[in-house]
Amino acid sequence: MDVDIGNALASVASPGVSRDSLERLDEQVADAHERIEDGMANGEHGYEALNLPDRTDPDEIRRAVEPVADAEALVTVGIGGSALGAATITEALDSDTKTVYLDNVDPAWVTAELERLPLENTAINVVSRSGTTAETLANFLVVREAFEDAGVDWTERTIVTTGESGPLRDLSERHDLPSLKVPDGVPGRFSALSAVGMVAAAVCGHDLEALLEGATAEADTLSGSLFDCPAYAYGATSYALDARGAGMNAMVPYAESLETYSEWFAQLWAESLGKDDLGQTPLRALGVTDQHSQLQLYRAGPRDKVVTFVTPREADDRAIPDTEVDDLAYLGDATLGELLDAEFEATEASLAAAGRPNVRIELERVDEYELGGLLYGMEAACVLAGELYGVNTFEQPAVEWAKKATRGLLGGGEFEEADAVAEKTELRVER
Amino acid sequence: MDVDIGNALASVASPGVSRDSLERLDEQVADAHERIEDGMANGEHGYEALNLPDRTDPDEIRRAVEPVADAEALVTVGIGGSALGAATITEALDSDTKTVYLDNVDPAWVTAELERLPLENTAINVVSRSGTTAETLANFLVVREAFEDAGVDWTERTIVTTGESGPLRDLSERHDLPSLKVPDGVPGRFSALSAVGMVAAAVCGHDLEALLEGATAEADTLSGSLFDCPAYAYGATSYALDARGAGMNAMVPYAESLETYSEWFAQLWAESLGKDDLGQTPLRALGVTDQHSQLQLYRAGPRDKVVTFVTPREADDRAIPDTEVDDLAYLGDATLGELLDAEFEATEASLAAAGRPNVRIELERVDEYELGGLLYGMEAACVLAGELYGVNTFEQPAVEWAKKATRGLLGGGEFEEADAVAEKTELRVER
Repeated sequence: MDVDIGNALASVASPGVSRDSLERLDEQVADAHERIEDGMANGEHGYEALNLPDRTDPDEIRRAVEPVADAEALVTVGIGGSALGAATITEALDSDTKTVYLDNVDPAWVTAELERLPLENTAINVVSRSGTTAETLANFLVVREAFEDAGVDWTERTIVTTGESGPLRDLSERHDLPSLKVPDGVPGRFSALSAVGMVAAAVCGHDLEALLEGATAEADTLSGSLFDCPAYAYGATSYALDARGAGMNAMVPYAESLETYSEWFAQLWAESLGKDDLGQTPLRALGVTDQHSQLQLYRAGPRDKVVTFVTPREADDRAIPDTEVDDLAYLGDATLGELLDAEFEATEASLAAAGRPNVRIELERVDEYELGGLLYGMEAACVLAGELYGVNTFEQPAVEWAKKATRGLLGGGEFEEADAVAEKTELRVER
Repeated sequence: MDVDIGNALASVASPGVSRDSLERLDEQVADAHERIEDGMANGEHGYEALNLPDRTDPDEIRRAVEPVADAEALVTVGIGGSALGAATITEALDSDTKTVYLDNVDPAWVTAELERLPLENTAINVVSRSGTTAETLANFLVVREAFEDAGVDWTERTIVTTGESGPLRDLSERHDLPSLKVPDGVPGRFSALSAVGMVAAAVCGHDLEALLEGATAEADTLSGSLFDCPAYAYGATSYALDARGAGMNAMVPYAESLETYSEWFAQLWAESLGKDDLGQTPLRALGVTDQHSQLQLYRAGPRDKVVTFVTPREADDRAIPDTEVDDLAYLGDATLGELLDAEFEATEASLAAAGRPNVRIELERVDEYELGGLLYGMEAACVLAGELYGVNTFEQPAVEWAKKATRGLLGGGEFEEADAVAEKTELRVER
């Protein structure tokens, strides 16, 4: 990926960061890069994620999915980092294999999604590091039952990705299922380029080597200066803008195929940096659609956000037909792609003209190689930002409370968190 | 809808609003309500939206869609307020009619969506007040061509909703298409309960009367005190929390069917309130999914947001099957619905325990009546908030710049905005 931070400069935008400030920040980037390099070299928890392009074995993943290589559809049962990396890859790329992600436990929705699947020719990809994630295990039990009810042997169609031990590991051994290991030292939100993200990609027939090669090319740019490394340029600029008041970061790809990528980025950014009362809030958006929804706010609301555009330089195109209506004649000379590009450039310029900071990330096109680079680049950007904030990038302690309360409420043990639920303060206004 | 603002009180959360502050704010609410009532009585621009439950004629809408009443699929061509209201309704409710919303101009995506449609049995719903919206008109030209290429007469399958004049009105007259009028004085984002949102609902066979009756029931609660009116309680609390530092409002329905509702709310809130350097930024989220993505940030990040939960009291359910794995046995005693409810209560309590403000909106269930109430209630909440902020709720001037620049870039006239695009400040960091 290439990054253009010109519209984040103080000469253009407020908040903005001056060239001088960036030069000074670059000294911190150099120090942070040393810590990151050390963490990678020592395989430290979290930093190990940046080693995945070297560690992940595409052959092992392809072997595991061989029994379902001809599946017409794939249902992935996972939530958060166990779903979003895989979904980002398979939604971005074309495939004949239909994909469904069961990342919620809404009963009507789960039932409707299962009914849309040709179960006799559907593969199951179940992912949970701990093997105890309530939503994932509940859904997996439901999926198994649905296959059984349809007379389809789920044990012949299921691939498990989980930790070394735990209920899901036990289950995969009991039923002799092909299984892969969630790599040690890699938090879920950083695991797209491991089996966690790539089993689905393999079932869909995507080029796993190209995904990893793109990531490697991005890894090769990691260096001691933000001016030499697109990922660090992005991470450092986002951090600097947050420090100057841009507490939100709107991720706006100008490609429908990258809509799920915004979801993935939102988890990466929120869960890694959102702690100790710090962290920039990710906004999930989409060009051009959100020009007609969020642009008014981005351009004229509080000066509290940076907008990140992601734009592929090349894409398939389609001509806009001529029309008999004079006022629309100009459209007939263009293509949908030209309209999309013009809207992107216009929106970017409209924010700059209003002094609102924005950053452009350019990809050659949306393919495996570029996507691997984008995912890796954003992960590296996030790790750098975590160093600059001084937070514990790779933990997510604040989600434990609700997990315990949920388990307590369902009778899965005694947890004082569950008792707090009953003590809610109410001030009701009713119809 | 019922609203519970207990967890937004200063006794629970920081930022939070004290009972005393709410009492004082209620005096402003009373004044704002008078202005709103006057605006409604005089049919003033924008306020007129709150009269829609009385003004919208379901019979007229049903007559217009009669030629396509048995369509297998419906493609709606519109963007922003011309799509989100309709999409919110049809995505929330079950129907045998498949719906597609062309609200973006990404060429590969438009092509793929069209290929998924059975054109010979697909209805077209094209919506643009001005009749000149570039994205909508370009897509409509593409859709027409696709129908022609498939040998299907699009003029027999198209319903137009547009203003009194303009290219789309001309076109509908030339081809004698059934057409409806975007109501005067109602901005797009407030038009869900007019033909703009309800043509799609009619094609999908939803109960239009129930939608309007639910809205009327909500309208009947509008009164001079936030303590008597759920919509005002919500609008006033959001405003008060923003004033105390909660510059973001995360909309988190615990129902997959309401995912698009969050998109609709995000436009309503952003475009209405985001001006004059003011406005609370909407975050689009979904329970339980985002517990594994955004909750860490919401609970432990900066104290700059309020979380709004939307939860239906009743929904279809599905048992979680028993399992042979001891550690998961507790799940087998529950249903997916009970898990969903427990996760909601646990998440709500986990935010309160961390002193993070949140608001609960309860619906009886997700049906036409409750949905009509929710949409109307949120619109009224937004209008009230606009009064409290003192902004021009019903305009969106900041989006005009980019529209002109786009048109200029495509050769649709001379616009100085287009020239600014070429003058972009660059600071590129390349791979």
